[in-house]
Amino acid sequence: MTTAFAFRLKATDGAARLGEIETPRGRIRTPAFMPVGTAGTVKAMMPESVAATGADILLGNTYHLMLRPTAERVAALGGLHRFMNWDRPILTDSGGFQVMSLAELRKLTETGVTFRSHIDGARHELTPERSMEIQRLLGSDIVMAFDECPALPASRERIAESMRLSMRWAARSKEAFGDRPGHALFGIQQGGLERDLREESAAALRAIGFDGYAVGGLAVGEGQEAMFGVLDHAPAMLPEDRPRYLMGVGKPDDIVGAVKRGIDMMDCVLPTRSGRTGQVFTRRGVVNIKNARHQDDPRPIDEDCGCPACRDYSRAYLHHLFRAGEILSAMLLTWHNLRYYQDLMQGMRDAIADGTFAAWEARFHAARAEGDIPPL
Amino acid sequence: MTTAFAFRLKATDGAARLGEIETPRGRIRTPAFMPVGTAGTVKAMMPESVAATGADILLGNTYHLMLRPTAERVAALGGLHRFMNWDRPILTDSGGFQVMSLAELRKLTETGVTFRSHIDGARHELTPERSMEIQRLLGSDIVMAFDECPALPASRERIAESMRLSMRWAARSKEAFGDRPGHALFGIQQGGLERDLREESAAALRAIGFDGYAVGGLAVGEGQEAMFGVLDHAPAMLPEDRPRYLMGVGKPDDIVGAVKRGIDMMDCVLPTRSGRTGQVFTRRGVVNIKNARHQDDPRPIDEDCGCPACRDYSRAYLHHLFRAGEILSAMLLTWHNLRYYQDLMQGMRDAIADGTFAAWEARFHAARAEGDIPPL
Repeated sequence: MTTAFAFRLKATDGAARLGEIETPRGRIRTPAFMPVGTAGTVKAMMPESVAATGADILLGNTYHLMLRPTAERVAALGGLHRFMNWDRPILTDSGGFQVMSLAELRKLTETGVTFRSHIDGARHELTPERSMEIQRLLGSDIVMAFDECPALPASRERIAESMRLSMRWAARSKEAFGDRPGHALFGIQQGGLERDLREESAAALRAIGFDGYAVGGLAVGEGQEAMFGVLDHAPAMLPEDRPRYLMGVGKPDDIVGAVKRGIDMMDCVLPTRSGRTGQVFTRRGVVNIKNARHQDDPRPIDEDCGCPACRDYSRAYLHHLFRAGEILSAMLLTWHNLRYYQDLMQGMRDAIADGTFAAWEARFHAARAEGDIPPL
Repeated sequence: MTTAFAFRLKATDGAARLGEIETPRGRIRTPAFMPVGTAGTVKAMMPESVAATGADILLGNTYHLMLRPTAERVAALGGLHRFMNWDRPILTDSGGFQVMSLAELRKLTETGVTFRSHIDGARHELTPERSMEIQRLLGSDIVMAFDECPALPASRERIAESMRLSMRWAARSKEAFGDRPGHALFGIQQGGLERDLREESAAALRAIGFDGYAVGGLAVGEGQEAMFGVLDHAPAMLPEDRPRYLMGVGKPDDIVGAVKRGIDMMDCVLPTRSGRTGQVFTRRGVVNIKNARHQDDPRPIDEDCGCPACRDYSRAYLHHLFRAGEILSAMLLTWHNLRYYQDLMQGMRDAIADGTFAAWEARFHAARAEGDIPPL
């Protein structure tokens, strides 16, 4: 097994890329979807089940873990991998985004952000240096630079100012990260929907030099069309020989559109959160399992899916579990959704390898246009 | 595989009995603990995980299932085993006890009970005949006669009257059950704490003739001493060559005391419910995982336990999950508790086979007297 972090681009099909990230904790096939393990668990899933869906890597949230159980406690217990029983790679976000969306009494300065915990009101500070320290204590394999971004729409001036602050923080993150063989540091491009600001941000990040590059500041309210507009040019601004990560995306068609435009990695709470609210992703679009039309239906959610929910249970049973408020409902539907997302990624990886991404994408959209199988 | 229901007594040690129930769906090793799958799921568990804990049989609740999703719907979907993906034996209660404890506007007559659902207020009726029909529709392997019992303390007159009504209902249950090879019907002894009423009830049941016999009307508020007082004589009133089932029991020391007194089968929600509230059963007694003393403890709940919670996770992690309200907390603690209960049964089965039940029981109580391992 390798002791270094390395990215290998294996094939391209248009702008879509097939690759592999090697890490001391294992290989990540790209394009990769990373399930979110917010508080040290992918909600409603055993970690061995997450691995069984095909996930090569998880995302952990610095903001949640620093508050509870705390990074120092996780470190004393042997690091996040051991704590949560996941021995494959983990990427941690920097905490910056969630501080701005979840914490209370935030105060932003050149130094960093002070805030109060949404759990107990305790005062905390996050800076590039502290974020690097927390992610090191957690034992993260892929560390994200500490950044800040405004919700869209925002003024061009606000976006530019915020991007430049994030670039100064990116340099401080690199300095604080230091030299950690086998661990990677990713920079995060900002600049909202402004192409020239994206260029300026990419140039700043390239000058600093990172192991990978994220396209940040999207999926914050701008809509799919605007997001794709950015992705039509932003990935090409980043080094070709490094992985490109689109943060917090997204719905299946967002993911397909992002891969088509040259994105290698994504994460989103959607498959797990939807699993708990009865929203099920299928090749034919979203199925709402709480709908009464499923209550007598002996068919699986998706006959072509190999997950336990589809292999062993009827729609009628899954409908019953959801209506009865049973925990097994969240367990099975989350498993299905994660499996669907991983199957989606595998389908795209195969298509890129075969040079048939365009045909694959046409079939993807055609199946969704058909809609769910008709009720009995 | 057998096509008949049969009980074989393999060994005794004092009053304690080792046996086997053969059914077309598989063998049940006795003494047996039956996890409760109230609404078609053992809460927070995949059925294959329930089987992995060592459970040979589950209990399903007629009252819950008749209201939602309804017995007719379960039947149309292929029966309860297929509905919930559990191919081993299932015992269903008659609905009588839960109607009296959960339903609204109950009205009890010679015919049966009318009531309103606690879910939607809809009017329903349960009679011996309807209970047999529902349990047949569910596809239950072991069907319980429809009975009624008062909470204790109750007057001797109320207990006698209720017991005699239950005996008339037992005869109607037998008549309605008919001849169903491979399926068993159990009668339920009543009579509260009154020895002569227990004798009268046992005689009535023996005269009707059942495949097994339950000791009913206990674990309804009388306390362990009074319950053991009944169990000192009640099992011997029932045919030796049929399984004896103590309904709704109980805590680990209740179970040990019941097996010691000749009980072959038990069920209780305690291990599953406690798993959701952070109460963990161990050889050294109950551990409350939400206690702050666990927050830095790298040790497992129980080093001698082979369940995933003990094999893969620290007390610190399980404490964190519980405090964070994570579903995985319920999943892991329920799994542990069910495994603990099944290990307890296996320990007793081995001890009875070896003729060392008294020594086993002394060790069981000694380990509990030691208490939980000291904090670090």
